[in-house]
Amino acid sequence: MARKNYAKPLGVKDSVIKGAFWRNFMELARTQVIPYQWEALNDRIPDAAPSHALQNFRIASGLEQGEFYGFVFQDSDVAKWLEAVAYSLATCPDAPLEKLADETIDLVVSAQQPDGYLNTYFIINGLEKRFTNLRDNHELYCLGHFIEAAVAYRQATGKDKLTKALCKYVDLVDATFGAEAGKKRGVPGHQEIELALVKLYQLTGDEKHLRLATYFINERGSRPFYFDGEHPNGSTGHTYHQSHLPVREQKVAIGHAVRALYMYAGMADVARETGDETLLSACSTLWEDVTRKQMYITGGVGATHHGEAFSFGYDLPNDTVYAETCASIALVFFAQRMFSINPKGEYMDVMERALYNGIISGMSADGKSFFYVNPLEVVPEACEKDRGKHHVKAARQKWFGCSCCPPNLARMLTSLGSYAYAKRGDTLYVNLFAGGSVDTVLDGGKIALDMETDYPHKETVTIKIREAFAGATLAVRMPAWCEGFQLTCKNIETCDIKDGYAYLRGVAEGEEISITLPMPVEMIHAHPSVRENAGKVAVQRGPVVYCLEEADNGRDLHRIFLTGDVDFATGYDADFFGGAVKIKAVGQRLSPEENDALYRKGLPQTQSEDAVLTWIPYYLWANRAVGEMTCWINYK
Amino acid sequence: MARKNYAKPLGVKDSVIKGAFWRNFMELARTQVIPYQWEALNDRIPDAAPSHALQNFRIASGLEQGEFYGFVFQDSDVAKWLEAVAYSLATCPDAPLEKLADETIDLVVSAQQPDGYLNTYFIINGLEKRFTNLRDNHELYCLGHFIEAAVAYRQATGKDKLTKALCKYVDLVDATFGAEAGKKRGVPGHQEIELALVKLYQLTGDEKHLRLATYFINERGSRPFYFDGEHPNGSTGHTYHQSHLPVREQKVAIGHAVRALYMYAGMADVARETGDETLLSACSTLWEDVTRKQMYITGGVGATHHGEAFSFGYDLPNDTVYAETCASIALVFFAQRMFSINPKGEYMDVMERALYNGIISGMSADGKSFFYVNPLEVVPEACEKDRGKHHVKAARQKWFGCSCCPPNLARMLTSLGSYAYAKRGDTLYVNLFAGGSVDTVLDGGKIALDMETDYPHKETVTIKIREAFAGATLAVRMPAWCEGFQLTCKNIETCDIKDGYAYLRGVAEGEEISITLPMPVEMIHAHPSVRENAGKVAVQRGPVVYCLEEADNGRDLHRIFLTGDVDFATGYDADFFGGAVKIKAVGQRLSPEENDALYRKGLPQTQSEDAVLTWIPYYLWANRAVGEMTCWINYK
Repeated sequence: MARKNYAKPLGVKDSVIKGAFWRNFMELARTQVIPYQWEALNDRIPDAAPSHALQNFRIASGLEQGEFYGFVFQDSDVAKWLEAVAYSLATCPDAPLEKLADETIDLVVSAQQPDGYLNTYFIINGLEKRFTNLRDNHELYCLGHFIEAAVAYRQATGKDKLTKALCKYVDLVDATFGAEAGKKRGVPGHQEIELALVKLYQLTGDEKHLRLATYFINERGSRPFYFDGEHPNGSTGHTYHQSHLPVREQKVAIGHAVRALYMYAGMADVARETGDETLLSACSTLWEDVTRKQMYITGGVGATHHGEAFSFGYDLPNDTVYAETCASIALVFFAQRMFSINPKGEYMDVMERALYNGIISGMSADGKSFFYVNPLEVVPEACEKDRGKHHVKAARQKWFGCSCCPPNLARMLTSLGSYAYAKRGDTLYVNLFAGGSVDTVLDGGKIALDMETDYPHKETVTIKIREAFAGATLAVRMPAWCEGFQLTCKNIETCDIKDGYAYLRGVAEGEEISITLPMPVEMIHAHPSVRENAGKVAVQRGPVVYCLEEADNGRDLHRIFLTGDVDFATGYDADFFGGAVKIKAVGQRLSPEENDALYRKGLPQTQSEDAVLTWIPYYLWANRAVGEMTCWINYK
Repeated sequence: MARKNYAKPLGVKDSVIKGAFWRNFMELARTQVIPYQWEALNDRIPDAAPSHALQNFRIASGLEQGEFYGFVFQDSDVAKWLEAVAYSLATCPDAPLEKLADETIDLVVSAQQPDGYLNTYFIINGLEKRFTNLRDNHELYCLGHFIEAAVAYRQATGKDKLTKALCKYVDLVDATFGAEAGKKRGVPGHQEIELALVKLYQLTGDEKHLRLATYFINERGSRPFYFDGEHPNGSTGHTYHQSHLPVREQKVAIGHAVRALYMYAGMADVARETGDETLLSACSTLWEDVTRKQMYITGGVGATHHGEAFSFGYDLPNDTVYAETCASIALVFFAQRMFSINPKGEYMDVMERALYNGIISGMSADGKSFFYVNPLEVVPEACEKDRGKHHVKAARQKWFGCSCCPPNLARMLTSLGSYAYAKRGDTLYVNLFAGGSVDTVLDGGKIALDMETDYPHKETVTIKIREAFAGATLAVRMPAWCEGFQLTCKNIETCDIKDGYAYLRGVAEGEEISITLPMPVEMIHAHPSVRENAGKVAVQRGPVVYCLEEADNGRDLHRIFLTGDVDFATGYDADFFGGAVKIKAVGQRLSPEENDALYRKGLPQTQSEDAVLTWIPYYLWANRAVGEMTCWINYK
């Protein structure tokens, strides 16, 4: 693998998303989530548990007196807020917000210890305990999030106060942990720092940062287990944080899904930067296990609440699912890194699946409430009365004690432009179809374009080249879900189809590329090894997975079924939460029974009545009254 | 309701079960479970957590030094063992076993305090804490079990040392708790003492015992909540132990299933003994809710592991089910009491369903291992890898830390004769079809009969009257599952059909009654509101529910389906765990797919191949290699 020749995501400033679909979400992140989280960080949300995160920094820096409060990883909330702010400032300059961020960075840095250490829990509670419980105490996780924030803030504003402070902290970590004699062979209990260190390395060019990331990846799972040394009296199990085996020997995704996917992303980063083929091979094996055996149709991952974890291949229960919003975001991180090494459509297909379904389902249409868990089937009474489903909520929640998902969504949405495109050599990859513009530099020169589309509502995309150098290549993704992809243009030297992309070589200024992505409504079935979906279909249009909600279809959704050829009709409803395509079809509903016996002889009831069914996009579910929802529908 | 004119269960000595089917189970209880539990109570089981239950009594009585060990309800294990021993001695005299039991009773009584108190946890740990935490500490529950043991032992052996001691303890409880001024208005956290006190009342005739039972029933759920007074700093919720409402206002079964059903049984006892129609009405409402909305086809109850509890109507998940063996046993207690008040077949139909399915499934065919949880669908990998199903075991366990189910099974099986028949006035009710004999006294005189049958394997039953008085009536149950019930006899005055019974008036010595219960294999479907069974059928023959096991049918049982008319064939396999009827039919199995994509366009795969399927009785599952099992099968 050519170490420098990889497909880099575009900088946030180089790609501006303007189209209504994503702009709406991005604006919610900017105008709702970021300000709300600022209030939360300052403990100003009525009736909510205090965050205390900024107060912890004030106490740690000696500005105020008091005790640490919150989770041991409370610092990371400040970091995620800063990262989202950085992306937001990059595309929407906002002087008061930048001033807030600067002051926050001043506060954070003011708590830093002379040797570089920076974690309020241990600064307040006693530095002698620092780095003694990497398994549980999230120190390296918090550092990782601060590194990501610092890099983003440096790129957005040019200001390097936070990166400099964190480089000093990284030096301390590097002096403390490593394979060299005299260092502790520690690894983080919650992976995240690995991918963050590679981001830092990309900014600084300092090989030490890459070496430290590589050390954490290589050391993980080696024996004797470091965590057992920390905890001689008992282990919580090593699979939970993927430390049961050296990472190159891990063949199936297991344990806490967010930890796993952050780690896989970090593994891919290190594999790319170091040219490590065995590590890349492990990434590919894990990618296939996740996406071919353990991923919901929504791009959700993590089949079980217990340990917020993967369970095993084809085990995808729809109602006891976890599918944490953060896990789907982490899946996008992994997809983006795999794509960077090997630009194939399959990685971006998964990214698109997660983005349009299981990620944005995490936020309400007004940006004010959030799902941790993104179920594919909900019966509210079951969520309420069976504690085995208590983790599945039928309504989004305002905020969380452990508030990882809302800020993670915020940083994902505010940086979406960098996911929409990538560049390698003379080629610009178009990975998402989202109205907006690109102004960036490839090998060979500048390229600028504008994209217009109402995707995913409409099937057409127009790309106009504003500026290009001779020989510039545009690689347009041809989604795997799309049959009959059409592309027309005026003057292109060659058009090659490869790995899910149309490579248009020699795009020139004034070129106008028209793309049609036919979006008939499709019934989708799952691999027959998926027990929970046996005899069921899901409905998808373009990249968007649909669901039936009680609000449109009444109760007892399990009594609804489809049969024969189904004639789907689509209609755009401009008033439906900012506009969405609804789907209608005539299905069947089992007739009410007169007999109320619990068990009866004979075959299951088959008498049914026509029922006009209405599907809405899954990502819009639970924006109306609390009710049943299902993605998978019986087919007979 | 006529207080004295009710259908009493037969005494254990009056009804001897000799037929192979039940005799096998009863012998396992006698020869395996009782001796094994004795070893357990004496901490002599290698590799098992010690019970310490007898040692607690030795310490409490001052015979030995040491500390209390075990659950706060550890005493009840001794009580259940004694109760099972009592029933066993009643039909199988065994001098060494009786000596052991006598010595155990001596030990138990030697720990009794001068004021009658008898609970080793508080005797050892400090009597000042006694009766201060009825919600959690099971004192009245343990007393209830000892009362049941004492009554059984008195009836089996005529010895009254334990009943006398317990009457003294009951006096103390009666002086402490009650509605009268100066008493605490306590109720038990784990119901059980209510039904036990009614048994004691039936033995002693002492109205005080009935009054105390009535008090506990009437006081429950009254405000202010007694448990809140005990626990001013927080409640664990009142539904868990059915103390959220006065019992007469409870309309749906909720909370811990064993607690609930012991309570409902006690409510029915009190309603019967006091002629309380409002209480009986509450019992009927709860009976209907349990049996028409919250009962598995196996007679299992308790849909959720969390709180070992009922969830809500028609919520009957097959794979995350609880369906504790003890809960089905408690359902039989409730059924028996409802029948005693109003001798209708529907109560005994439920009893039979539980006995032949979800109760005896709790024990292995060798009597050496046990299920707490009796699932209707098992995929072993899911039980292992999804902690949400960890409570569901794919193999029976040797013994349990909390060993309620094995001894509960033992006392149920050793007293089965008393469930098989009941008597009221001049009528003997035949409730179970089990080879054996009856010698008892009705109003009017003695009646004696012998029953011969290979039920449930075979369809025929013969009852020979050995002795009868003029006008004696035999009421033979006509199971609701049975169509084409036939009965022939020689000289009967009248035969009336009522409430699921054939009342044969004027049976006389020498009468021979031949009964045929046709047992075609039936496909059964669930009420369409049961989400988990939509489009599925179960297979039943006679009272026995069948299942598919991996051992006979391979893996991926969810890929098997039935279609069209199914031609079932039955065959008796004498070598199959003591003999059982197996069922075979040709079904379909989805063909293997070449494509391994997780999600694909189009309708679910329909290509399938003929598959010869073999069903075994559900109660015999998990006696071979660990593997998948399902009761409910897709039907297309």
